[in-house]
Amino acid sequence: MNELESYSILIEQEIASIDLPQSPSNLYDPLRYFMTLGGKRMRPILTLMGAELFGTNRAEAIHAAVAVEVFHNFTLIHDDIMDEAPLRRNQETVHVKWNQNIAILSGDVLFVKAYQLLAMQQGAHLPALLEIFNKTAIEVCEGQQMDMDFESRNDVSIPEYVEMIRLKTSVLLGCALEMGAVIANASKENRHLLYEFGQHVGIAFQIQDDILDLYADPDKFGKQVGGDVISNKKTLLNLKAMELANAEQKSQLERLSSEQDAVLKVEQTKKIYSEIGAKESCEAEMQEHYTFAMNALSQIQLPEENKKPLVALADYLMVRNS
Amino acid sequence: MNELESYSILIEQEIASIDLPQSPSNLYDPLRYFMTLGGKRMRPILTLMGAELFGTNRAEAIHAAVAVEVFHNFTLIHDDIMDEAPLRRNQETVHVKWNQNIAILSGDVLFVKAYQLLAMQQGAHLPALLEIFNKTAIEVCEGQQMDMDFESRNDVSIPEYVEMIRLKTSVLLGCALEMGAVIANASKENRHLLYEFGQHVGIAFQIQDDILDLYADPDKFGKQVGGDVISNKKTLLNLKAMELANAEQKSQLERLSSEQDAVLKVEQTKKIYSEIGAKESCEAEMQEHYTFAMNALSQIQLPEENKKPLVALADYLMVRNS
Repeated sequence: MNELESYSILIEQEIASIDLPQSPSNLYDPLRYFMTLGGKRMRPILTLMGAELFGTNRAEAIHAAVAVEVFHNFTLIHDDIMDEAPLRRNQETVHVKWNQNIAILSGDVLFVKAYQLLAMQQGAHLPALLEIFNKTAIEVCEGQQMDMDFESRNDVSIPEYVEMIRLKTSVLLGCALEMGAVIANASKENRHLLYEFGQHVGIAFQIQDDILDLYADPDKFGKQVGGDVISNKKTLLNLKAMELANAEQKSQLERLSSEQDAVLKVEQTKKIYSEIGAKESCEAEMQEHYTFAMNALSQIQLPEENKKPLVALADYLMVRNS
Repeated sequence: MNELESYSILIEQEIASIDLPQSPSNLYDPLRYFMTLGGKRMRPILTLMGAELFGTNRAEAIHAAVAVEVFHNFTLIHDDIMDEAPLRRNQETVHVKWNQNIAILSGDVLFVKAYQLLAMQQGAHLPALLEIFNKTAIEVCEGQQMDMDFESRNDVSIPEYVEMIRLKTSVLLGCALEMGAVIANASKENRHLLYEFGQHVGIAFQIQDDILDLYADPDKFGKQVGGDVISNKKTLLNLKAMELANAEQKSQLERLSSEQDAVLKVEQTKKIYSEIGAKESCEAEMQEHYTFAMNALSQIQLPEENKKPLVALADYLMVRNS
């Protein structure tokens, strides 16, 4: 998707301009390292597109856009500690490359950097931007806490799971878009519709993520196919399967959860999921959120032409890795 | 100091009004717990006094005041993880009472709460408030990183040490006061003078803290007298002593650092410090900062009468526990 490149250039320029002093090096070296690990920079692109949708030059939203990206990176640094993740984008995580205390503290500083970027936007927009951003930041933390709580629970319902992914990842997409709309002085109603578009594309995207973990083409998928099944991770696939399974299938799945042979475990689980129709059930839920997103977008009273970049981006997100 | 009580009532009311939902309980229970552990609430009092100094009703600065207190509590939760501290205000720390991941994440949420409080101030003041607050938040993190770095260094100079305590603790006192001045529409020059007053009272206070650790009246001191000496902590006392010691005294102090008998260690160290005049040297440096603070305050062109609460508060801080 070549049109994205022009956004990326602007975003990388702004990221490079963030003031990260040389000293204390244990505080700022990790941030220099982490901010250049790359990633798709989808969130800041959304902010820029959100501003452009309402006729405002993307450059006017660049500080807020990168504030969202910086916030996202802050959450990744702290999440990686909590999840004891050794790798991020195939490179060592901050708490592994340095240590945990440095990861906590450099994450904290990065969070302030997000607010510094936000504060570079026009004063007139600041109260609205802060309101969305603060609300979203809190929701993202709530989502992460729910995710951690779910690990030790065996009674997670599907609505609870969807609420967790909504908070942990999807609200930030809505926030990114809405901040662009705020900067473009869009009406409250249009801001809200754009937020809903982003939020539901985000939920659909996360459900796709759950599906791809088991059903992706191994040659194109960046990680081990079936990883969630092997580690008994709660995903929508797993929850849908347990909900729809008959008694026999349920006990088969429960037995499989302690299966040591990974290949066999994935193969057998896939077979039972197929009998149950777990994948199709997830796809239906994914499609629901995608449709909801598109409906929200269509309600914004603007020429369809203006919405094309957002539709293209959503379509791009929804077919990746598959 | 009874005049402080009327400030405290307002502050505790505002703290009690912070929205901390019931769920996820693992995220918000720790915050309910931590925010009611108490403390002197000196920082928010400073913000309220900063506003009053320039003739603005304290109630107009209450959100910013409590934002500073909430930020301070956020740093304590994260610092306690990094320092592996079991107790805070004689109660279990969050990472001990819950766990480390919960302490990281609930700290993060508390940080956002500080920004939410700040955003409740008038929009016209927001850009200036955010500028001071963000700058200070970054400096506090830099100070904490320097403090951690110092643990594994044997070449910490006195100016470096003073810079560390300035960043880690004193800038927040300056920030608290200056935010009050911003809300009262004080001039840039007066804002700066008030900041300097707070910062240098803060440095003097921290130096006093170092002195009291060894020279406090054991009956009045809340913790073990000599704790810093026993744990070989770098303090201004220790750095001054090493700087002023002759070769013989230096080697005696180095030998004492591995002394196992705590009582003997404290007693002998105190004796050598006394020969060297380490305490007097620290007191001179403390007095310098105190004088600097008072000079800054005196340069603010207002009746001396208006400054009395600030002078009283500074005097109160400078004689505590001794």
